[in-house]
Amino acid sequence: MKNNITPKITLVGAGPGDIDLITIKGQKAIKSASVILYDALVNEELLDLAPNSVKIFVGKRKGFKAYSQDEINRLLVDYALQYGNVVRLKGGDSYVFGRGYEELLFTEAFDIKVEVVPGISSSIGVPALAGIPVTHRNVSNGFYVLTGTLSNGELNPEILATTKINATILILMGLSKIQEIVEIYQKEGLGETPVAIVSNGSLPNQQSVFGTIDTIIDLAVNEKIQAPGVIVIGEVVGLKNQFNQVLSEVVAY
Amino acid sequence: MKNNITPKITLVGAGPGDIDLITIKGQKAIKSASVILYDALVNEELLDLAPNSVKIFVGKRKGFKAYSQDEINRLLVDYALQYGNVVRLKGGDSYVFGRGYEELLFTEAFDIKVEVVPGISSSIGVPALAGIPVTHRNVSNGFYVLTGTLSNGELNPEILATTKINATILILMGLSKIQEIVEIYQKEGLGETPVAIVSNGSLPNQQSVFGTIDTIIDLAVNEKIQAPGVIVIGEVVGLKNQFNQVLSEVVAY
Repeated sequence: MKNNITPKITLVGAGPGDIDLITIKGQKAIKSASVILYDALVNEELLDLAPNSVKIFVGKRKGFKAYSQDEINRLLVDYALQYGNVVRLKGGDSYVFGRGYEELLFTEAFDIKVEVVPGISSSIGVPALAGIPVTHRNVSNGFYVLTGTLSNGELNPEILATTKINATILILMGLSKIQEIVEIYQKEGLGETPVAIVSNGSLPNQQSVFGTIDTIIDLAVNEKIQAPGVIVIGEVVGLKNQFNQVLSEVVAY
Repeated sequence: MKNNITPKITLVGAGPGDIDLITIKGQKAIKSASVILYDALVNEELLDLAPNSVKIFVGKRKGFKAYSQDEINRLLVDYALQYGNVVRLKGGDSYVFGRGYEELLFTEAFDIKVEVVPGISSSIGVPALAGIPVTHRNVSNGFYVLTGTLSNGELNPEILATTKINATILILMGLSKIQEIVEIYQKEGLGETPVAIVSNGSLPNQQSVFGTIDTIIDLAVNEKIQAPGVIVIGEVVGLKNQFNQVLSEVVAY
């Protein structure tokens, strides 16, 4: 190790977007960072917590990647060796489709200490902020989170398997595949299954649409729903309609 | 509304245990609470953030429930009407097997404003802290989180379905059912599937064991693994062994 620097990399999940939805530990890591490498889905206001750090945008904008994953891995190593304390800041959680473990494997091979600070995953937090619980007693005892789009750009073939299980389905990176997803559910006779899409969850421009497999595409088009969004499929989406039932139970109280 | 009080309830997820793994928003909610109703899995150090608030333990200890869910629902309403700002503080996330939405439905029926502050779910955060990513490119494109034990005390029948899908399986409240879970996987010929159990994740007494379906029970017994724990099933558990492969790729750098 040259020049007394102790290299360290901290993978920090920034949460869904609202700067107050990062953890205390994540905020502390940012404040003590010498260098921050951040992605497109990170709220840039978080960078203001570290006014004196070097900030490098390594995300994708308008379909153009600033750096390949290999390049990011090497930047992490180079900056850690040169500056010491590097924070890798990603939207959501680093291990939920964030490629965080690839970065950990690469950088630990250089004997650099890597710490992981979990973040609020949009898969759970964003539906919650739109009024949808991912589990609810007697309705859903679990949830399956998956990507709609594989790294090669194709539809995740596991979408078909989601029609066979009794759980809430949460699809990230699925908006561009919504037509194919809807067709798979319709072929299985599940056109009336409740569906919601929540986009830009936790931010001032949060939008959501509630419908069914049969209606969701028209609703999303009408409301001009934009990526990034979480697609929620399952009976928990329909719970808002149970309000009247609960009201009648409450009368006795 | 009597006495100028504006009743409000905030459902706050406290995260897996480490007090720095709560969100900034969750911490702010605690600091401004007049009353805090908290569960057994909440780190009680968080209560120190609100020295002047009324704190009520409504969890389960040694199998004994201080209050039924109905009673908790009514306490939330009573305290909100009497004191104003009530925080309902739970371990993990309120909507991941936390019964948070039941509380929202009940209390909103009284026209009380309810806000939800997501928390780090142990299902994702605890494996991460033990070195296991819930997703990893070319290994796992998704994860299925479910409870091992239903509210009636029985095994979740969905466990069998988890043997049929291509995803990381994350079981909460499953330690007391580990024998039955192992038998289901063995019957499907999946005895060599990698499994880990991580208990007390993020706390000083965090423990983890890594094995396979065939070996995990002996390992857990030997290491005296205690609840609460997350059971992780799938190839991501075996990634730690890929370290050498990555090292050889790195040599070229």
